[in-house]
Amino acid sequence: MKYGRTYNFSAGPATMPEPVLEEIRDEMMNYRGSGMCVMEMSHRSKVFQQIADEAEADLRELMNIPDNYKVLFIQGGATLQFSMIPMNLKTPNGKAVYIETGAWSKKAIAEAKRVYGDNLIVAASSKDKNYTYIPDCSDLDIPDETDYVYICENETIHGLTWNKLPNTKGHVLVSDQSSMFLSRPCNVSDYGIIYGGVQKNIGPAGMAIVIIREDLIKDLDPNTPIYMRYDTHANAGSMYNTPNCWCIYVCGKVFKYLKNLGGLGEMEKINIDKAKVFYDFLDSSKLFKGTVVAKDRSLMNIPFVTGDKDLDAEVVAYTKAAGFENLKGHKSVGGLRASIYNAMPKEGVEALVECLKKFEAEHK
Amino acid sequence: MKYGRTYNFSAGPATMPEPVLEEIRDEMMNYRGSGMCVMEMSHRSKVFQQIADEAEADLRELMNIPDNYKVLFIQGGATLQFSMIPMNLKTPNGKAVYIETGAWSKKAIAEAKRVYGDNLIVAASSKDKNYTYIPDCSDLDIPDETDYVYICENETIHGLTWNKLPNTKGHVLVSDQSSMFLSRPCNVSDYGIIYGGVQKNIGPAGMAIVIIREDLIKDLDPNTPIYMRYDTHANAGSMYNTPNCWCIYVCGKVFKYLKNLGGLGEMEKINIDKAKVFYDFLDSSKLFKGTVVAKDRSLMNIPFVTGDKDLDAEVVAYTKAAGFENLKGHKSVGGLRASIYNAMPKEGVEALVECLKKFEAEHK
Repeated sequence: MKYGRTYNFSAGPATMPEPVLEEIRDEMMNYRGSGMCVMEMSHRSKVFQQIADEAEADLRELMNIPDNYKVLFIQGGATLQFSMIPMNLKTPNGKAVYIETGAWSKKAIAEAKRVYGDNLIVAASSKDKNYTYIPDCSDLDIPDETDYVYICENETIHGLTWNKLPNTKGHVLVSDQSSMFLSRPCNVSDYGIIYGGVQKNIGPAGMAIVIIREDLIKDLDPNTPIYMRYDTHANAGSMYNTPNCWCIYVCGKVFKYLKNLGGLGEMEKINIDKAKVFYDFLDSSKLFKGTVVAKDRSLMNIPFVTGDKDLDAEVVAYTKAAGFENLKGHKSVGGLRASIYNAMPKEGVEALVECLKKFEAEHK
Repeated sequence: MKYGRTYNFSAGPATMPEPVLEEIRDEMMNYRGSGMCVMEMSHRSKVFQQIADEAEADLRELMNIPDNYKVLFIQGGATLQFSMIPMNLKTPNGKAVYIETGAWSKKAIAEAKRVYGDNLIVAASSKDKNYTYIPDCSDLDIPDETDYVYICENETIHGLTWNKLPNTKGHVLVSDQSSMFLSRPCNVSDYGIIYGGVQKNIGPAGMAIVIIREDLIKDLDPNTPIYMRYDTHANAGSMYNTPNCWCIYVCGKVFKYLKNLGGLGEMEKINIDKAKVFYDFLDSSKLFKGTVVAKDRSLMNIPFVTGDKDLDAEVVAYTKAAGFENLKGHKSVGGLRASIYNAMPKEGVEALVECLKKFEAEHK
């Protein structure tokens, strides 16, 4: 590969489009005649405001975000959102309904518990089968006083994706899209909040994007920390304090890259095509097996196993020696995982499959 | 200047050392044979762990940080710290003592009030003279049950610096060093917590560094959001969730740059020398005046005025046309301000002074 780069299957931070990195490199010493690097720009300057405005406008165009939704850039990743969501959406007697489908929804549940206590309901879970499927959520028992229904739309560690949203019975849907952000079109109006850390499918770590319906931005208990209130960020155009300017700049470039590619519809086609290469291989392999039921398989994160721990470790070493990085599964589940986000080219997946086939042939 | 760069007097994000930017540019497509850009690296990878470890080690060396202090990299800037400090240090009947010396200590007070209520004491203030001096804090009335005494050691907007720390009567001292971080040596043992956003005197926006004495990291009310607890970050080596990896990488380079320069003692000499150029000019000018009493003047942020709003605006336009950026004072105080952080070369200050002298000559 160009520049001696490797195929990087990291689950996040993860591979980024090469042309985006090249542009950033070329703008490092002097951004478009501004006389400075973007890292050196006052966030209150016209030149940076334009970068931020363009990033937001391009994201709005890509996702077709309606006008009654705010786009917020907030530091602290999805983890801070785990707390901010319940703190901002809770009504005095309200309940929060969570669906448990893997490690990330589980973490979100733990944080929301601190806010909702016994008023947090886990309405469905796939824990019984080690989070290998999305439970049927077409007719859940959802109380009237529910503030919101929460899902993690793509579980990075367990490799599950929601292909049909839960029936919330008219209640607000909140979705963590961290590891599938911009991987396919989505109808924003179906959600109250879509959010995600950007470090998986968009840019560098250090920021979450929160797309929130305006009526959900409310006055809160005055003792709430200022940074934890959505109204703080919404009223200041995400610049109440200095935002992660660099991250906004880089994400903005990725948005333009996706627009030039043809948008999210085109991206989805590429992602389906690309994931098929890997899943077809898994389905035909005698050695490697996917861990997720076919209908709920993620297009982004593909966990797989040989069924033998030591052999899994051998695969990691073998692929690394062949120039493929980060094939090890998350430590909580073990096994192997290939994260093939937007920026992973099909050639990368094909090359990895060839390598795994070779390994299989050598280990009959 | 090289690359057509301008002298950038922004208060933050702010100018960075050119050699650091060049290194970053050169490592963009493939960091030292890793096959990837630092933005693409898993924060759990060996190659990134080494970057983070080196950054911490270099900072410890630069500041001579004792072993019983933790160094934490936390997103959310100083603003999130305004909340985290009281949330983490409060004891059941404890009081918090704040010294009010300008806009940033005032913001910190507002956030701590949400936690301490009437148990927050403003023990001294320079509000009576528009925050143009540091009050005498050699013998304050500090209650026994005080959890900590809080100062903003350099007020970015008002241009004040503490040159002698307050007498805390044995209580914990907490200091916001955002706009003076690494500008001079400091005796870490004098403090319980030193913290600051890095986007003024170190690197890009999106992170605070918190240097905290270990015994101040305590068990908290279990309802505290996980991200807001110092123990979360301390126990995970600042990697409970994905940190701002890029920022750690860039800050690490600045730490090395400062080490190569000779450390903070050398940096202080340069800063004193550099600020003298500007203050000497102000003291001799008939048109321009500094706003801060001589003994408390900041080496980093120099607010000044002509005494005439329209003329101030003319100065901003005049200097901008001459290639000097961001001379406008903060909107809350008006006037002019030159921020001359570590990375601003003396030549930049000299050139600005020449430009202001020319303006003065033309406006007699």
